[in-house]
Amino acid sequence: MNQPHEQEILRRLKSVEGHVRGVQRMVDEGAYCIDVVHQIVAIQRALKRVSAMVLDEHLRSCVTDAMRGPDGGEREKVLDELLQVFEATGKV
Amino acid sequence: MNQPHEQEILRRLKSVEGHVRGVQRMVDEGAYCIDVVHQIVAIQRALKRVSAMVLDEHLRSCVTDAMRGPDGGEREKVLDELLQVFEATGKV
Amino acid sequence: MNQPHEQEILRRLKSVEGHVRGVQRMVDEGAYCIDVVHQIVAIQRALKRVSAMVLDEHLRSCVTDAMRGPDGGEREKVLDELLQVFEATGKV
Amino acid sequence: MNQPHEQEILRRLKSVEGHVRGVQRMVDEGAYCIDVVHQIVAIQRALKRVSAMVLDEHLRSCVTDAMRGPDGGEREKVLDELLQVFEATGKV
Repeated sequence: MNQPHEQEILRRLKSVEGHVRGVQRMVDEGAYCIDVVHQIVAIQRALKRVSAMVLDEHLRSCVTDAMRGPDGGEREKVLDELLQVFEATGKV
Repeated sequence: MNQPHEQEILRRLKSVEGHVRGVQRMVDEGAYCIDVVHQIVAIQRALKRVSAMVLDEHLRSCVTDAMRGPDGGEREKVLDELLQVFEATGKV
Repeated sequence: MNQPHEQEILRRLKSVEGHVRGVQRMVDEGAYCIDVVHQIVAIQRALKRVSAMVLDEHLRSCVTDAMRGPDGGEREKVLDELLQVFEATGKV
Repeated sequence: MNQPHEQEILRRLKSVEGHVRGVQRMVDEGAYCIDVVHQIVAIQRALKRVSAMVLDEHLRSCVTDAMRGPDGGEREKVLDELLQVFEATGKV
């Protein structure tokens, strides 16, 4: 990954980590269940944002290189991986 | 929440926190983007499991009490909250 | 279901049916794939809206009756069903 | 789209259309709400499958052509579209 992109992704993952710890505290202190669920949904949304950023990076580096390269097997591979990611996504 | 249920939810949130740290390490060490995305999907799935557990607890305590209680406004409130959770879910 | 609610749900399902036929036409006429995918996402969203309406109806009739009734087994049943719906949702 | 792929996609969209009509009948005949919701989830899942097939086709034709072609703006465009599809997906 390029440096600034990677730093931003790490920053967001650190923020997600803090958010997860915050939800642990909520549970520990007996917060209202519905509030806990909404915080968990917010974390899932933040993670979706991170995976979109990682995918963006991937498309602009590995996928672009493979697609423009001479190796048909490699092209096949990156396309199959993209489809698998698309199918895994949303099944959460 | 009842004690064993709450402990299990906290245990799972701790595991999610460790998983998020693991993904940070992957990004830091330059792991393959597609592997990172699949780990993030796995975390989202684990979080969905946790929110189902919290909701289970909620249905069997607060919702049951409110629905069996005399307060029509309170019943209305818990049902509206359930619908909002249902609608927020999946929009991730 | 109460009458006006049911009519609105049927009206929306008819609209979804028309939308699905529209997408068939798009595919048949060789529309751009990305446009087809976005129309399918729009249909999924409309269906989610319908299932929220059905669930709303369900909460205010069957669930309310069961929860306020004397039959513990019946209460257990409606809560389990709600959890299953919550878990099935989003895994799409 | 290539012919057999397109026929299979149309066949599945026809089946989705029939499924939507089946749910209308269920609502009309007063089926149990939870059963209606599960049928709607099944339709959403079938639509997700169709959009994966359309995307597969798209990756192997338009995206491959654009990525291997000389036009940087066109490459940028197909990658942006893929990201938008990824982000729209799951927000249902």
